Amino acid sequence: MIGVLIDDRVKAGKEAINELYNSGHYGRQKGDYLELTLIEAAYLHYKKKLEIQIGDKSLSFEEFFIEASKRQQYFDLKYIVYKDLRERGFYVQPSVTDFRVYPRGGYPGKTPAKFFVHVISERIPLFLRELRMSLEAAHNLHKTMVLAIVDEESDITFYEIRKVDPVGDMETIEHALKNIRVRSTFLEDRVIVWDSNLSKILHTGGFYGQPLDSDRLQLSLVESCYLLKKGVLEVTDMSGISSPLSFNEFAAKAAVIESEFMLKYKVYENLRDRGLIPKTGFKFGSHFRVYQDFKSVDKLPHSAYLVHSIPEDYEFTLPLMSRAVRLANSVRKRMIYAVHDNVQCAYIDIGRIKM
Amino acid sequence: MIGVLIDDRVKAGKEAINELYNSGHYGRQKGDYLELTLIEAAYLHYKKKLEIQIGDKSLSFEEFFIEASKRQQYFDLKYIVYKDLRERGFYVQPSVTDFRVYPRGGYPGKTPAKFFVHVISERIPLFLRELRMSLEAAHNLHKTMVLAIVDEESDITFYEIRKVDPVGDMETIEHALKNIRVRSTFLEDRVIVWDSNLSKILHTGGFYGQPLDSDRLQLSLVESCYLLKKGVLEVTDMSGISSPLSFNEFAAKAAVIESEFMLKYKVYENLRDRGLIPKTGFKFGSHFRVYQDFKSVDKLPHSAYLVHSIPEDYEFTLPLMSRAVRLANSVRKRMIYAVHDNVQCAYIDIGRIKM
Repeated sequence: MIGVLIDDRVKAGKEAINELYNSGHYGRQKGDYLELTLIEAAYLHYKKKLEIQIGDKSLSFEEFFIEASKRQQYFDLKYIVYKDLRERGFYVQPSVTDFRVYPRGGYPGKTPAKFFVHVISERIPLFLRELRMSLEAAHNLHKTMVLAIVDEESDITFYEIRKVDPVGDMETIEHALKNIRVRSTFLEDRVIVWDSNLSKILHTGGFYGQPLDSDRLQLSLVESCYLLKKGVLEVTDMSGISSPLSFNEFAAKAAVIESEFMLKYKVYENLRDRGLIPKTGFKFGSHFRVYQDFKSVDKLPHSAYLVHSIPEDYEFTLPLMSRAVRLANSVRKRMIYAVHDNVQCAYIDIGRIKM
Repeated sequence: MIGVLIDDRVKAGKEAINELYNSGHYGRQKGDYLELTLIEAAYLHYKKKLEIQIGDKSLSFEEFFIEASKRQQYFDLKYIVYKDLRERGFYVQPSVTDFRVYPRGGYPGKTPAKFFVHVISERIPLFLRELRMSLEAAHNLHKTMVLAIVDEESDITFYEIRKVDPVGDMETIEHALKNIRVRSTFLEDRVIVWDSNLSKILHTGGFYGQPLDSDRLQLSLVESCYLLKKGVLEVTDMSGISSPLSFNEFAAKAAVIESEFMLKYKVYENLRDRGLIPKTGFKFGSHFRVYQDFKSVDKLPHSAYLVHSIPEDYEFTLPLMSRAVRLANSVRKRMIYAVHDNVQCAYIDIGRIKM
C-alpha cells in the first residue's frame, strides 16, 4: 500500500479504503481515496502497512517522522498517545480535541465516540479557561473529557475531567445559637472564643474550630468570617476598645494575613451553604478537606474531597496538578478545583483514569 | 504562686524555683527569683499553678493571653506548640530557635537537649537560606532540627530536616560505548535515537530513555544533555543539515523549551555522577524519582527518593512542601530538595517526624 505525503495529510488510493479503513478504521474516505493524518500514517508505516512517498521518493520511518514533526506541532507527543491507545485496542479518529476515542468494543459507524482526548506535554501550562471551554464542549456532546499528559520520558497519564455538584446534609448552627452572639478575639492570625459553653456548641454542633484547651476554642479565619456573616460571632481586636469588626473589616484584616483570603472564603461559604463541612486541607497541600456526612466530632467520617479554590484566570502547572491528584487518590479522596465567579461556584473534579 | 509580668517576662519569687523549676523544669533561675517566658507563664496559668499580675491586678487567662499576644510575635502559635510538647511529656526550654526540647526521659541538667524546634505558621513563606543556616547551626551542635508547622486550624505537623549525601553504585555507560557516537535527532521537546542496537544498549545498560517502539529510543532533555556532555551522544536538529549540537547549544535550545532546564540539569548530572539513576518524577510532582540500586529494566527496584531541584534563593510555600512530603511518604520515598551552587550540590531531606 502506498500513500503520498501532501501538506499535512497522506493520501492513499482506492484499495486503501478496504484494506485500512474497512478493516482497521484508519483514515477518512474522500471520494475514491483515503485521507490519513500524519499520525495515522506514521503508525501504519511503523506497522509496515503503508509505504509513504514524497513525489517518487520513499521515506524511511526516521525520514517521515522528522518530516511530520516539521509539519505538525507536537507531532511526537500526539503520536505517542495515538500509538498507546491503538495498541491497547481503542479505535481513534482525529478531532478538534486531538482525538475522538471509541469505547472498548466500539468503532466508527457502530457506536458513537465516548472520549474526547486532549494531548498535552507536562511542560505546557494549561489554562483553566481553555479547560472549561473544552469541558463544556465535551459535556454538551455527552462525551467524557480526557487529558493525556505526556511527561518528559514519554510516559502517559490519563485524567478524566468532570463537572461535579457536591452537597451535604449538615444543618446550620444558627438555630442552636438563636439570639446569642458569641464573643471572640482576633489574635495574630486566628480567633479565640473564650466562653467554655459556646466553644462546645460551635465545635461539637457545627464542627467549627479546634479546642485550645477544654474551655476555649480556636477558629480559623474563614470559619470566623463565615460565623460573623451569619450573625453568630462577634469579633473584637486585641485592643479590646474598638467596636466589633464588621464583615468587611474582618475580611480586610484577614486579607493582610493571607493574600488569598477572599479566594478561599468564597468557596468556604459556598461549601458550608451546600451543607458540607470544609476543614483545612493543609496536610494535603489543598485549601480544604471536605466532610459530607458529619455525625459527631468523636466519630468523624472520612473526608471525601480535597477542594482547592482557584481564580478564573488560573494556569495549571501540570506537575503540581499531577501531585495534587495523586496525593488525593492515595488518601482515597477526590481532587476538586473550585472556581467562584462572584455569582456561583463551579466544581471541577480531576481524577486519574485507566484507559 | 504569683508571678509579675514585666516586659516580655514573668518573674516569680524564690519559692517558685523549688516548686516550678526543680519539679517541672519551668523557667530559669536568676539569682533569687525564677524568670519565665510568656509562653511558660501562660501554660502555668492554664494549669492553675501560677497567678499572674500586672502591678497589683491579677489577670484572667484571657487577659494574660491577649496581653502576651501584644508583646510577642506569634505568641499564640508558639503557645500551641509548647503546650502540645509539654502535654506529651517533653521538657522544653526557650532557645534562639524557639525551643530546645529534651529527649523522652531527659530534662535540663540530666541530658543535653536533642531537638531544636522552630515554630512557623503554614502561611509564612520559609526561606531556604534561613532553613540552611538553622540546619547548619543545629548540625554543628549535634541537634536534630525540627520544624513545627501550625496550620490555620492550629493542628501541628512536625518535620525533621536533615542533610543527606545519597550515593549509588551505577557504573557509567561510556565503557559500553567506547569510540561510538550515538546518532540522534532533537524533535520538538525530546530526542530520538534511531539505531536499534544502540537504543538497546542505552536503555538496558544505563536505564536511559524510554522505547518509542522496539527499535527506537526516546531520550529526555536532561538525559540527552548528559550523554552529549559525556561524549556518547551526537544530537542534530530536525533540519538535518547543521552540524551536531555542542553542549552549550543543546542547553540553550533546551532552556527555551523548559525555562528551569539548567536548574534541573545540574542536579541530574550530580545524581548520575554519584552513581544514582534519576528518572522523571512527573507523576509525583517532583523533578526526579531516583533509583539507588539498578539491576535491569525488567527488574526495576523501588525508587527510594524523590528529588526536587531548587535555586539558592528559593522560598518554600509550606502547603506545597507539606503536599510533596506527604505524597513522597505515601509511596515510601524520601523527599529530598537539591540545591546546586554551581560548585557542589547539597541535599536536604525533609520528612515528617512523630514527636
